[in-house]
Amino acid sequence: MRPIRTLAALVAAGVLAAAAASAMDALPKSPPVPGDNPMSPAKINLGRKLFFEPRISSSGTVSCNTCHNVMEAGEDDRSVSVGVGGRQGTRSAPTVWNAAFLTVQFWDGRSPTLEEQAKGPMVNPVEMGMLDHTSVVRRIAMIPGYQDEFKAVFGGDDPITIDNVARALAAYERTLITPNSPFDRYKAGDKAALSAEALRGMKKIESLGCTSCHSGPVFAGPAGPVGEGFYQKFPTIEGTVYEKQYRLAGDTGRHSVTNAEADRHMWRVPQWRNIAITAPYFHNGAVATLDEALKVMAKTQLGIDVEQKDVDDMVAFMEGLTGEFPKQEMPRLPVMPMKSVLEDTQ
Amino acid sequence: MRPIRTLAALVAAGVLAAAAASAMDALPKSPPVPGDNPMSPAKINLGRKLFFEPRISSSGTVSCNTCHNVMEAGEDDRSVSVGVGGRQGTRSAPTVWNAAFLTVQFWDGRSPTLEEQAKGPMVNPVEMGMLDHTSVVRRIAMIPGYQDEFKAVFGGDDPITIDNVARALAAYERTLITPNSPFDRYKAGDKAALSAEALRGMKKIESLGCTSCHSGPVFAGPAGPVGEGFYQKFPTIEGTVYEKQYRLAGDTGRHSVTNAEADRHMWRVPQWRNIAITAPYFHNGAVATLDEALKVMAKTQLGIDVEQKDVDDMVAFMEGLTGEFPKQEMPRLPVMPMKSVLEDTQ
Repeated sequence: MRPIRTLAALVAAGVLAAAAASAMDALPKSPPVPGDNPMSPAKINLGRKLFFEPRISSSGTVSCNTCHNVMEAGEDDRSVSVGVGGRQGTRSAPTVWNAAFLTVQFWDGRSPTLEEQAKGPMVNPVEMGMLDHTSVVRRIAMIPGYQDEFKAVFGGDDPITIDNVARALAAYERTLITPNSPFDRYKAGDKAALSAEALRGMKKIESLGCTSCHSGPVFAGPAGPVGEGFYQKFPTIEGTVYEKQYRLAGDTGRHSVTNAEADRHMWRVPQWRNIAITAPYFHNGAVATLDEALKVMAKTQLGIDVEQKDVDDMVAFMEGLTGEFPKQEMPRLPVMPMKSVLEDTQ
Repeated sequence: MRPIRTLAALVAAGVLAAAAASAMDALPKSPPVPGDNPMSPAKINLGRKLFFEPRISSSGTVSCNTCHNVMEAGEDDRSVSVGVGGRQGTRSAPTVWNAAFLTVQFWDGRSPTLEEQAKGPMVNPVEMGMLDHTSVVRRIAMIPGYQDEFKAVFGGDDPITIDNVARALAAYERTLITPNSPFDRYKAGDKAALSAEALRGMKKIESLGCTSCHSGPVFAGPAGPVGEGFYQKFPTIEGTVYEKQYRLAGDTGRHSVTNAEADRHMWRVPQWRNIAITAPYFHNGAVATLDEALKVMAKTQLGIDVEQKDVDDMVAFMEGLTGEFPKQEMPRLPVMPMKSVLEDTQ
């Protein structure tokens, strides 16, 4: 049984109900900042150090930046990432650039905030592989420079806690914004910023209804409250050739977190910012090119085969979503005198 | 049979012959630059990108910086490094900081220059794991931004060659200098830059004859011509308890390159710059602390047991060799539009 839904049926089902009201928004200058984690230059600098800190992985070889490479487009160019011991995960690392605008984190939305997200990979056995958060804190606390910096940023008698580590990381991540894409310049009035091809692509994307889900400031859904999340079923139309070819239904998505049947194959809608430079695509990174990813989406979500010229136009539009990556100073990680913290085998 | 040589015997054997003439030199402002690879800001910037470029490893996860972390003390805090697929080598990554002052590269001196050294790890199966240099060049040449930068830096019709990749890397590495250590400030006339303890340690180091090998600008031997090399046998005195405890004789050093019997257990004398923050120690990284490393050296090279108070003094001096790490801009790696270069499976 292969239930093929028509576009009309999808609209009737409410999947496309928001299409008319949806909007492609310009990127805001700054993301939402939670009240309990205000940003400061010192906190951001500390967070940058922690983001590049390999010593909070069991082997001392994997940092946040290993999979979310901010020197590139914020991910690792791989289908799935490689963690400690050469271990591989099952999902593709999403870009950290503009992740601050997402209303939930991880492909399955299992963390409501950047702070919560930051704690996950450190203790994931196939990522940074630390035994527990106590081990992470102990490693950091061994390093005199971190003792001083945490004290200066957070104060108190015992400032090196996993929550403060996460706060510093999240504060840094909220600076990872890529403004002034051709699309943003177009929205700001520079009508020459997008080519005729890209403009045709934009219209096509709207008319197909892609923006019923890919709306908002990062095209990952409306800019709702942090923690709310914006999900969609993928693949919506079951049994396409792509589903088998790219193993699209092999992972049940949000269902793997909630165990709720309604969440089977539900995914946080991924953002489109810098999408042209974050190949490969989808939750399992199985699709190599943006061109192919668009065809897959049209078939699995809308039940249609798009013509190549339309695909070309839509790709041209998406290239216009590549923003400007701000210059940053390279962090200097506090040194450990006399011995390696990796001697602490957790 | 355990031949134990006395200090006098070592002097007679010529091991310590240079002691009187040796000197602890201040760090020069700049290292030697080969005539065929002049430095330029554009070349240095390109080299910095390549140094942080994980896409020139088979898995896309290992860059030069992975093992020679310039955000730290130029190495990875590990006994031996971890390359692609979680594979481990047999020797400890030496720091890249001030490596430009060494007269040969690698522990066994198998590369005369930074340029030659740079080509090695890329195609080492346990490091970056690329099939060959052609694969490295192909990956880089796929990325439009690199095409432009190599053209601008090197000119010509076909500027992306492995030799030019190595030239850019070496040019960047020649900027990785840590001036103004307490020792350098002391040498420049600031007599308060070293503590009384450190000064006692300096005298002890000279009187023991450590500087017969650890002389020159980076304490790795005299600043001779590039490619000449400065080697010493380690362990010189065979059969100590340390030899077994730390597997010091399990690797034959330069002999593994030349197969010459005279080179058995000969090693390039390692530098002392930033030695207090580059634990663990020795070619196999088997010794965890600087304190212990000094005791091992005294026993295996000089045949003596040094008192703890002398060790403390010498460690205090060596802490004074930690220099200032210059601020750097984080590189932005050229992006690959529409697909990952890792799709090129070599």
